[in-house]
Amino acid sequence: MSSTPDKPLVILRAAPHPTDRIFTPDALTRLHDRFTVIEPDSEAALDDALPDAFAVVGQPELPAERLARAGKLRAVLNVEGNFYPHVDYDSCFERGIHLLNCGPAYAQAVAEYALGLALDLARGISREDRAFRAGRERYVYEGNADAVLLQGSDIGLIGFGQLGRALHPLLAAFRPTLRVYDPWLPPAVLREQGLVPATLDETLTRSWFVFVLATVTDESRHLLGERELDLLPDGARLMLISRAPVVDFPALLARVAEGRLLAGIDVWPEEPVAADDPARGLEGLVLSAHRAGGIPEAFWTIGDMVVDDLTLIARGLPPARMQVAARELVGRYRNRPVS
Amino acid sequence: MSSTPDKPLVILRAAPHPTDRIFTPDALTRLHDRFTVIEPDSEAALDDALPDAFAVVGQPELPAERLARAGKLRAVLNVEGNFYPHVDYDSCFERGIHLLNCGPAYAQAVAEYALGLALDLARGISREDRAFRAGRERYVYEGNADAVLLQGSDIGLIGFGQLGRALHPLLAAFRPTLRVYDPWLPPAVLREQGLVPATLDETLTRSWFVFVLATVTDESRHLLGERELDLLPDGARLMLISRAPVVDFPALLARVAEGRLLAGIDVWPEEPVAADDPARGLEGLVLSAHRAGGIPEAFWTIGDMVVDDLTLIARGLPPARMQVAARELVGRYRNRPVS
Amino acid sequence: MSSTPDKPLVILRAAPHPTDRIFTPDALTRLHDRFTVIEPDSEAALDDALPDAFAVVGQPELPAERLARAGKLRAVLNVEGNFYPHVDYDSCFERGIHLLNCGPAYAQAVAEYALGLALDLARGISREDRAFRAGRERYVYEGNADAVLLQGSDIGLIGFGQLGRALHPLLAAFRPTLRVYDPWLPPAVLREQGLVPATLDETLTRSWFVFVLATVTDESRHLLGERELDLLPDGARLMLISRAPVVDFPALLARVAEGRLLAGIDVWPEEPVAADDPARGLEGLVLSAHRAGGIPEAFWTIGDMVVDDLTLIARGLPPARMQVAARELVGRYRNRPVS
Amino acid sequence: MSSTPDKPLVILRAAPHPTDRIFTPDALTRLHDRFTVIEPDSEAALDDALPDAFAVVGQPELPAERLARAGKLRAVLNVEGNFYPHVDYDSCFERGIHLLNCGPAYAQAVAEYALGLALDLARGISREDRAFRAGRERYVYEGNADAVLLQGSDIGLIGFGQLGRALHPLLAAFRPTLRVYDPWLPPAVLREQGLVPATLDETLTRSWFVFVLATVTDESRHLLGERELDLLPDGARLMLISRAPVVDFPALLARVAEGRLLAGIDVWPEEPVAADDPARGLEGLVLSAHRAGGIPEAFWTIGDMVVDDLTLIARGLPPARMQVAARELVGRYRNRPVS
Repeated sequence: MSSTPDKPLVILRAAPHPTDRIFTPDALTRLHDRFTVIEPDSEAALDDALPDAFAVVGQPELPAERLARAGKLRAVLNVEGNFYPHVDYDSCFERGIHLLNCGPAYAQAVAEYALGLALDLARGISREDRAFRAGRERYVYEGNADAVLLQGSDIGLIGFGQLGRALHPLLAAFRPTLRVYDPWLPPAVLREQGLVPATLDETLTRSWFVFVLATVTDESRHLLGERELDLLPDGARLMLISRAPVVDFPALLARVAEGRLLAGIDVWPEEPVAADDPARGLEGLVLSAHRAGGIPEAFWTIGDMVVDDLTLIARGLPPARMQVAARELVGRYRNRPVS
Repeated sequence: MSSTPDKPLVILRAAPHPTDRIFTPDALTRLHDRFTVIEPDSEAALDDALPDAFAVVGQPELPAERLARAGKLRAVLNVEGNFYPHVDYDSCFERGIHLLNCGPAYAQAVAEYALGLALDLARGISREDRAFRAGRERYVYEGNADAVLLQGSDIGLIGFGQLGRALHPLLAAFRPTLRVYDPWLPPAVLREQGLVPATLDETLTRSWFVFVLATVTDESRHLLGERELDLLPDGARLMLISRAPVVDFPALLARVAEGRLLAGIDVWPEEPVAADDPARGLEGLVLSAHRAGGIPEAFWTIGDMVVDDLTLIARGLPPARMQVAARELVGRYRNRPVS
Repeated sequence: MSSTPDKPLVILRAAPHPTDRIFTPDALTRLHDRFTVIEPDSEAALDDALPDAFAVVGQPELPAERLARAGKLRAVLNVEGNFYPHVDYDSCFERGIHLLNCGPAYAQAVAEYALGLALDLARGISREDRAFRAGRERYVYEGNADAVLLQGSDIGLIGFGQLGRALHPLLAAFRPTLRVYDPWLPPAVLREQGLVPATLDETLTRSWFVFVLATVTDESRHLLGERELDLLPDGARLMLISRAPVVDFPALLARVAEGRLLAGIDVWPEEPVAADDPARGLEGLVLSAHRAGGIPEAFWTIGDMVVDDLTLIARGLPPARMQVAARELVGRYRNRPVS
Repeated sequence: MSSTPDKPLVILRAAPHPTDRIFTPDALTRLHDRFTVIEPDSEAALDDALPDAFAVVGQPELPAERLARAGKLRAVLNVEGNFYPHVDYDSCFERGIHLLNCGPAYAQAVAEYALGLALDLARGISREDRAFRAGRERYVYEGNADAVLLQGSDIGLIGFGQLGRALHPLLAAFRPTLRVYDPWLPPAVLREQGLVPATLDETLTRSWFVFVLATVTDESRHLLGERELDLLPDGARLMLISRAPVVDFPALLARVAEGRLLAGIDVWPEEPVAADDPARGLEGLVLSAHRAGGIPEAFWTIGDMVVDDLTLIARGLPPARMQVAARELVGRYRNRPVS
């Protein structure tokens, strides 16, 4: 299979996804109409294709020596929502190779899920459903002693990247005071959007609902430790959405166990969680198995984004849908691929 | 205790609530500052107070003969969210006595809860929490096969009164197509708000999420019967929020049992639900014990509304916070008081 | 022409409008399909029709003795946006006759116009257009010394009825601080909508843009006198939208003449304005000839509203589109019909 | 003056602005607190400073040879809203030097002005103000024959960059159908924001209001020629906001002169406009002298953005406020600096 000037060569390796999870038949048709697509079944086949490649879709290893052989390469498109250390990013930046990930494909799904967890914790939805199934349901106000509104409440966001931006309009409908802690953003960026820039301590001290949306870097590991968790008001609800290492897990679980905090947890230090992990029995938790982003509509968006951005780049335009790597940040992330 | 021109007499009987559930200390202070308040401990004491009464707060029986003795009466303020047949409404309308209920106090709480149920059903939040507690959790996409977004979805509202109006801005943030069936409203009222007026059948046929928000009247009893439920698409999510009789319950539960529909149910034909009701074991349900509205913040709003509207009426102004009875509708409601 | 139970009799006297200004052909067809319509060409013809009339559309004189002869009357629908003293309102309230006006038909047009005036004054649009036509235009920043943003500004609303409610979402897009002075509304009603309740003095002292939206009553006449206008910050923009008597006109014009305030004026103490009125030459004004509401789309909405509400009432339902008279307020308005 | 590791050297040449137009005293203090600032008064002084420079603020000539001498350069921050051909962009991209302009500082001012023009044209605000001053005002509906609402209207945007994104929320409050023509964006980007992607012809054919927001490139010159302008419906309102060359000016003015279109024009083929330009007399125009963006608040935002982004870059973070040059687009713009 050879590419033509009209149909540049795209190397596709969708792993860890099967191809048809992230490409609808329609997206696949569009991809093949516009590009010569090769899905190499070995490292050797990949190496053979590189010199002619316009773009790589997926996350094969791309060290400097491989990139050196890919003289026509214009873009590397990761099919997960992170930048992992499998690419020699410096070479790419020097050569102006676009580095993209599909994080935005998940943002809406994550935002809706995060709001769902917050409403569950605000009102005890899953807790009271369990009680109902056990014949212990409490009618009307009996089960509502700790129920609170989101409307007009104080809400904190730890981190304001693409997840925060997707969550913001959903929360705005509740007219909250939205405090945001994000050390990578100047306050004016937040103020222009009607948000209140705040320190971490202020955000924690004054928020009834806290969404943890920060990515993992060396600085954000255990950003929420014992001291920080103790700043939260009694009865606060914490939604842990982004990455487990941002929080001191034993400290969080201890505070949930003693009834001081309620928490919705979607990401865990080890996945799968141990069978005998005591978190499984905590009444103050909503337990979730890394499910916030990975829904069918999000996966299909990945393929659609990939085709759209490849098309723009082939037309000599900048990509418009996927997340663009920032030179300063790409080396800082400490996320691990989902296995 | 006698009233003065400056402090008109208000008869207060907060039942079924204890007074301090619906009045914060601050609201109670405002009430006593502006009005002479009597809480009669017997029907006789109530009768004695009526001739001087400016307003009745609560739901004592007020038949025509009692109203006839209350020559100065200007308002009857129900402390629940309905109009029950305990008042001779015709006399009130003739005399221009304000008839108010505190339904709006609950509207935000109900709207947030309804959205919480919808997000739970969209993403399986309580179902997967149960699985996690049982050691059967499924990570990432394994448990997400039936997960869907609200964003851009087709949503139907059955009834568009105060609950619908409170829910609307919360849903609008998801940019859905919002079809509304409400036979009491002309289409233009809905269109002006960006809603799509629709017949019941259209609304059901085309909606992935359906919120049942209609009040009970002779016409709306079993509005959603077998035929109507079968119009819903496979996998639709139904949130039953307003009143149980609007839906044919056995028909709904049968469809949930066979996996055709998912449902969040907050109101039940009989409450408490029988211990052996098979609904308690249905995986496709989120079970809720009439908890949507009755939260502390909603109750406190009742007292606040009562004081505000009493104050306006005493100043010669129309009430502005509570729901005003419509002469045409007040006799149609078939709601029963919560016992 | 005689009515039938299926087609109740509607007396239509569209004056001061020609019928086809307020009824589109489609609305007129709907009206005639559902009702027996009579357009009496004399007072005698009107009197003859009254005993059988289901509703009167328009503003003929309806004193007590005429109403007494209209035993089947269910509704009086004014085709202007006010309640004038041409109806014996007390009889109507006693008998439960609906009293409606079509104010809401104008609300959106007025709101858009008010925003247009505010943006004009914020940026000098009409002033600089005049300069351009005179060959005196100033490019880029030269003409922008006094230009200000609405975004994030302090805005005051004097009165928050249907005009305020229509204007609110348009202004909200600018993320302002919106202070509202409305003595007929309790603060909670405003707070629930994200508005800041304030006294008149606070509202004036702190607002860069002030919209005067209050209706005329004995209390609101010259609500904005010399003292109040002097509370406004230097350079404030005042939009006079509702009724001229709310403002002390000479005081306002004096402050505009001396450059302390800018103003957009749509309503005038005498209309037409005298040919030699010095207001015509003031650079700090945007002059407007009572044009805010009366646009074709607003007029056509009147007919549509009339047919919709007549239809609801005939079906035994409350009206849903027109403004309903409040017993406490209907006698207070001091508006005069447009001649 | 020498820089230190703690206070990197910033070369500041604010021209065409005086420094205090774009820096408030507070912003200037922040700048000097964090950076060593030099304002070179000659090309030689600039050359002397380059080897040590961390950033250049302003638009001096920076050809390859100069950049080669600026070995520590990390950023070039243009103090206008465009990228002009005064920098050797290729060298910058290779070296990862940030290329920024302050376009976003103007976006809100431009968006508010564009809406002001649209409301003026929708309602004849400046036209009727002129008539009033000439004693020819027309009251109520007399002057409103061609007045239209924005609410629910069909609106077209030609180009959807930062101006479109700032205008979008202001327009959304009117619930329009918003069609967008932007050949640089895939349809999904628009759909996700509730916009309708459309071809140029569709956008023109179906829109009552058209905002021209496109930048000038070889492709967009005379994008709206005779054929395209003739697609607009009779009576359409066109707001020319971005750059004059996008429109065939004689063709536009001819259609305004004959009453087929109304237009608000802020940018002109030659500025200043000739004293005898017949545009000055056209009743169907709102004339504006390149005033949409250059207001005091926008200028002060420039300095604030510059300090914020310099600070982020010095901290090893990506800039967050100014517009980042896209390698593909930076050479395409054909804007000229304002003289």
